Amino acid sequence: MTRLEDLPIRDDLRGLVPYGAPQVALPVALNVNENTHPVPDEVASDILDSIARALRDVNRYPDREFTALREGFADYLGNGLLPEQIWAANGSNEVLQHVLQAFGGPGRRAFGFTPTYSMYPLLTRATGAEWVAGERASDYTLSPQSAADQVAAADPDVVFLCAPNNPTGTPLPIDVITAVYEASRGIVIVDEAYIEFAPRDAVSAISLLGGRERLVVSRTMSKAFAFAGARVGYLAADPAIIDALRLVRLPYHLSALTQAAASAALRHADVMLGMVDEIVAQRDRISATVEALGFRAHPSWTNFVLFGDVDDPRATWQALYDRGVLIRDVGIPHHLRVTAGTAQETTAFLDALASLESGA
Amino acid sequence: MTRLEDLPIRDDLRGLVPYGAPQVALPVALNVNENTHPVPDEVASDILDSIARALRDVNRYPDREFTALREGFADYLGNGLLPEQIWAANGSNEVLQHVLQAFGGPGRRAFGFTPTYSMYPLLTRATGAEWVAGERASDYTLSPQSAADQVAAADPDVVFLCAPNNPTGTPLPIDVITAVYEASRGIVIVDEAYIEFAPRDAVSAISLLGGRERLVVSRTMSKAFAFAGARVGYLAADPAIIDALRLVRLPYHLSALTQAAASAALRHADVMLGMVDEIVAQRDRISATVEALGFRAHPSWTNFVLFGDVDDPRATWQALYDRGVLIRDVGIPHHLRVTAGTAQETTAFLDALASLESGA
Repeated sequence: MTRLEDLPIRDDLRGLVPYGAPQVALPVALNVNENTHPVPDEVASDILDSIARALRDVNRYPDREFTALREGFADYLGNGLLPEQIWAANGSNEVLQHVLQAFGGPGRRAFGFTPTYSMYPLLTRATGAEWVAGERASDYTLSPQSAADQVAAADPDVVFLCAPNNPTGTPLPIDVITAVYEASRGIVIVDEAYIEFAPRDAVSAISLLGGRERLVVSRTMSKAFAFAGARVGYLAADPAIIDALRLVRLPYHLSALTQAAASAALRHADVMLGMVDEIVAQRDRISATVEALGFRAHPSWTNFVLFGDVDDPRATWQALYDRGVLIRDVGIPHHLRVTAGTAQETTAFLDALASLESGA
Repeated sequence: MTRLEDLPIRDDLRGLVPYGAPQVALPVALNVNENTHPVPDEVASDILDSIARALRDVNRYPDREFTALREGFADYLGNGLLPEQIWAANGSNEVLQHVLQAFGGPGRRAFGFTPTYSMYPLLTRATGAEWVAGERASDYTLSPQSAADQVAAADPDVVFLCAPNNPTGTPLPIDVITAVYEASRGIVIVDEAYIEFAPRDAVSAISLLGGRERLVVSRTMSKAFAFAGARVGYLAADPAIIDALRLVRLPYHLSALTQAAASAALRHADVMLGMVDEIVAQRDRISATVEALGFRAHPSWTNFVLFGDVDDPRATWQALYDRGVLIRDVGIPHHLRVTAGTAQETTAFLDALASLESGA
């Protein structure tokens, strides 16, 4: 049998293992920050109608410019955005990959404040750039001054700001974004994957785009939109940024079925996002309950909670697993991360956790 | 207004223009080698049922290993292939990109015999490797000796063999593949995007996989399968190659909808491929007719014909365009390329071409 090491694989890939949380079928899966509420039937039915129409021409290549979908995203985001300011790809990872291919790559440097989304360094290195990790305060917050100083010192070509931050849930004040932008000469990506779970009056970085041609705000339909399986990420930026991304995307990267499904889902944004309030309520219930159980819940503006003061995260993770509840060990000492599920799933998690504490 | 040049884009991208044939709505579009026959209704209906089922869980991430789809491809390809020898991605371009990311990239070299598929050098350079172009005989054929000598001299990390070749249509004898494999230390990719249009008794490179752990055979559902809009490419290789590709793919790169659609289409492979004989008949009709009109038709095992002895390809292309027929100027002097369409579309093209020749 041929082994991977026997093949002429790139030296920088030797010994690596593929990224990804375990995919196992447990009754309660709260490990990858999905929206655990299925798409409502009436929306699914309209999505299916749109896909049926797209299937009639599926023998033809899709619209390379995904014009209708970009119009849909521009409408959804508001703030006077135009379709030519929108880009989309198969998940926000591919969106970020396109930005790195255009503005990062060999000989360049990308920067982020850790702990943060673990794909940033992987995407950075996979496109040939160097990854530089900045620091957060011990509560994972960032001040404008510290963030700007670190960015100025690292002088990166691409900066990632995860707002709110994964895996900690930490909000990112808007004045940190403006301070980092001013301290930088490179592309500043604000990753708002979880922004729909922030308080209603929270300000999106979308509102900062005017006059900031190096600013990019990425989003995803995987979380609040309950569309993780459809793989749709997107971003808003200056039209010149979109021109740059067109140079690095593969031709026809977005299938006609994806375009149809996402456009239809956007037409029902109100319904698709209808579960956000319920999820936020479960998130706050998790925070309060784990605190009551003696853990430390970090403030979260997302659909998950990172909690600390876990004596042995690996043992707790396994004990929950054995009770049919899958959560995530994100590698932060004495911490675990759990996604807010339905009321029932959340109860199952909290009951299981409480039973461990009581030795039941 | 910000211009692309004002942004901190990579130097190697400055001045480039995006890849892609013009997307214009003409009555007869024979420019990008699509299958112009729509997916039959009974298959579309089954595909839609599968997508409807996938939509029920679309709030969850898709199966990262696309297990059912890999089983479908292994069944379809036969030759005793196992699912662990199969990889798939959003179009064969992404499949090839994954191979280049694992085995090409910065400091490495990829090689192909030009004229060949124009994406090979673009994909190669986009992943940071150097592109080296080999030569074909004046009729675009390749002999085992010449091919092996050129590969040995270039010493590439990745070799592309397009079989049959795009944009020329030229068959690739199986002994060229074995000779190149033996002359090489790198990955040898046989791109069989058009193989279903070859004579029934033509031998696929799939049959060469046993004992050749550096050999990769890529395919697509975009051509014979009439599935260009769904973006599904795939490959077969040693399981160790698949392990390597897992290191460079983005997590969850294939959506649940794509997996469902492709698996359903594969269950109806006979019907999906039912138009191949008809397309081959139209291709041969094109070859015979353009020869009768005084052009030179290159032998083709694909769903298109490259024809030479065109005095002014640009003028002929435009004149056909003005008559509602879109074909492709692939940049080979005195040549044009046309896709075999339905009988009606093919007639429209041939009549328009004849009318130009007669000065009508």
